[in-house]
Amino acid sequence: MHMAPVRNARSVFNEVPIGLPDPGRTVKYDDSQTIDLDDVDLGGGFLVKVLYVSMDPYLRNRMREPSPKNLRPPFIIGDPLVNFGIGVVLRSENPEMKVDDHIYGFLPFQEYAILKETKAFRVISNEANIPWSAYVGVCSMPGQTAYYGWRALAEAKKGETLFVSAGPVGSFVIQLAKHEGLKVIASAGSDEKVQFIKSIGADVAFNYKKELTTEILDKEGPINIYWDHVGGETLDAALDAAAHFARFVECGMMSQNNATPENPPYIPKNLQLVIGKTLTIRGFVVTVFEDQYKEDFYAEIPSRVAKGELKYVEDVTVGLEGVGQALLNVQTGANRGKSVIRVSQSQ
Amino acid sequence: MHMAPVRNARSVFNEVPIGLPDPGRTVKYDDSQTIDLDDVDLGGGFLVKVLYVSMDPYLRNRMREPSPKNLRPPFIIGDPLVNFGIGVVLRSENPEMKVDDHIYGFLPFQEYAILKETKAFRVISNEANIPWSAYVGVCSMPGQTAYYGWRALAEAKKGETLFVSAGPVGSFVIQLAKHEGLKVIASAGSDEKVQFIKSIGADVAFNYKKELTTEILDKEGPINIYWDHVGGETLDAALDAAAHFARFVECGMMSQNNATPENPPYIPKNLQLVIGKTLTIRGFVVTVFEDQYKEDFYAEIPSRVAKGELKYVEDVTVGLEGVGQALLNVQTGANRGKSVIRVSQSQ
Repeated sequence: MHMAPVRNARSVFNEVPIGLPDPGRTVKYDDSQTIDLDDVDLGGGFLVKVLYVSMDPYLRNRMREPSPKNLRPPFIIGDPLVNFGIGVVLRSENPEMKVDDHIYGFLPFQEYAILKETKAFRVISNEANIPWSAYVGVCSMPGQTAYYGWRALAEAKKGETLFVSAGPVGSFVIQLAKHEGLKVIASAGSDEKVQFIKSIGADVAFNYKKELTTEILDKEGPINIYWDHVGGETLDAALDAAAHFARFVECGMMSQNNATPENPPYIPKNLQLVIGKTLTIRGFVVTVFEDQYKEDFYAEIPSRVAKGELKYVEDVTVGLEGVGQALLNVQTGANRGKSVIRVSQSQ
Repeated sequence: MHMAPVRNARSVFNEVPIGLPDPGRTVKYDDSQTIDLDDVDLGGGFLVKVLYVSMDPYLRNRMREPSPKNLRPPFIIGDPLVNFGIGVVLRSENPEMKVDDHIYGFLPFQEYAILKETKAFRVISNEANIPWSAYVGVCSMPGQTAYYGWRALAEAKKGETLFVSAGPVGSFVIQLAKHEGLKVIASAGSDEKVQFIKSIGADVAFNYKKELTTEILDKEGPINIYWDHVGGETLDAALDAAAHFARFVECGMMSQNNATPENPPYIPKNLQLVIGKTLTIRGFVVTVFEDQYKEDFYAEIPSRVAKGELKYVEDVTVGLEGVGQALLNVQTGANRGKSVIRVSQSQ
């Protein structure tokens, strides 16, 4: 029986935000398109039903005017957002992709997509039998970011002290650090999150909206590793509290993302301390270390997640209609865990 | 024959400067003390006639109120300045130090000094037969800073591009980089200095007071290594012009040194680029790598200087009376080469 064309809803980039994203304007939910799942021309490619896409703070960086100096291309107005996601193959004209294969890679924020580049996707066998959403969370970019950066840049030694802000990446880093015998100081933006980071082993956990980071670090530092997601004033506090030869892993500088001319970002003033304290500051994006550590990651992490050795919290938005709000939430920290968008109800 | 006591003039720290050092106030020339070279009690130590002391920009950092977080102790009001220098032993009660030994190490800005700690000094044999002043310049801290930092942190590869500002350290770095086949972009603060850095091999040399660093780097970059003495706006330009995986060697941030509440320093705003460009920023002070590279340095560099392979320019201040002005000059860049103070006329 031939099915009628079905809705192929999308979440499209609508407007470059000034400051924080605006849930009603930055992206628009568009359900005007349909797709004939049986007959649509695949052109040698494969048709995928998108199950989950990831919502991450860094997407904000792609919501801007094109600039030749920036490294990732900006999103295009009128096109769907794109990010890591999990989909399932419905039809395929490419022998490398089989029906029912679950694939991980860059997917559009769209219910169905026709894809060509098999190399851009990894077929996930899920032998650990964990929820598919974990493959856009703890077993995806945030987990990989933590795992790669920790292995490549932290140079962690037992007994040292780490400072990190909690979040999907930070929570993973906390668990890696505790596993290796470090003292962990971790901050979070709500008491609920503070409870969670305590539960996964942080030795010192505090709500940065209620306590001063500088005071905590003065008391609990000096720190040997600062894993940065925040930049700005927090980076300044970490520079001040750094021990000699400390390593700074620069994973994000959220505080710099949503500045406006009226609300300029706090610029760290303690950078000169890198000299006298012999600090190392290294930035990275997850893709840089992918070739080096990807296979180790998939061999090790999903099974540790299945065993409950690595804990995580998810904040699931059901349906593409909620993308605009989720986008804002990951900027303000209103999300309660790793933000994922459940695009399709069926798995 | 017993000599009468002789003058033992000193250059004493007089006042914490606000902003730039003031030649008449920050340090004072004091010739009120005398010393009996024949009879003064050595207490088991050795008496040294100070020949040269080094004048370096970093001394400004020690001219401040004591602060527990700072790494080098501040100078003490009323005591002589202290820095790397060369002296000759006049008398000794310690068998490790012999009369006429030339010693290198931390010496007071004072004509004669009684010293105890033999381990703090290196006896310089000067087999290369170069001027003693070179041992407080190109063969001393500035040369060591360049040599150690280059070996430990630059990760230079043939064909890469370096950006550095000229000065005693920078001039050395330029020559190391050219020796290893890099393209060198170098800035200096006068046309005379630009001529010198061209003469030692800089491929692109410009006067930063006449040309915009950002424009030069846009045209001649991207850069793979930035060797920083300046910080602030120049660091921002280098971050902007950095290639992926560039290394930033943080040797000094002169632009941050002489700030006042009315004249705050320029704070670099491009730090976020460390993430997307996967940059490494490492600070160091020369002492950190001393154990690792010191013997290599003395085995290699004085003989290369003697052969004329490593060129340098000196700016010699004769007599301790000129210390105040020399101190200001190295902050403003008015010195024409490595600033050294010739304390004694005889060698």
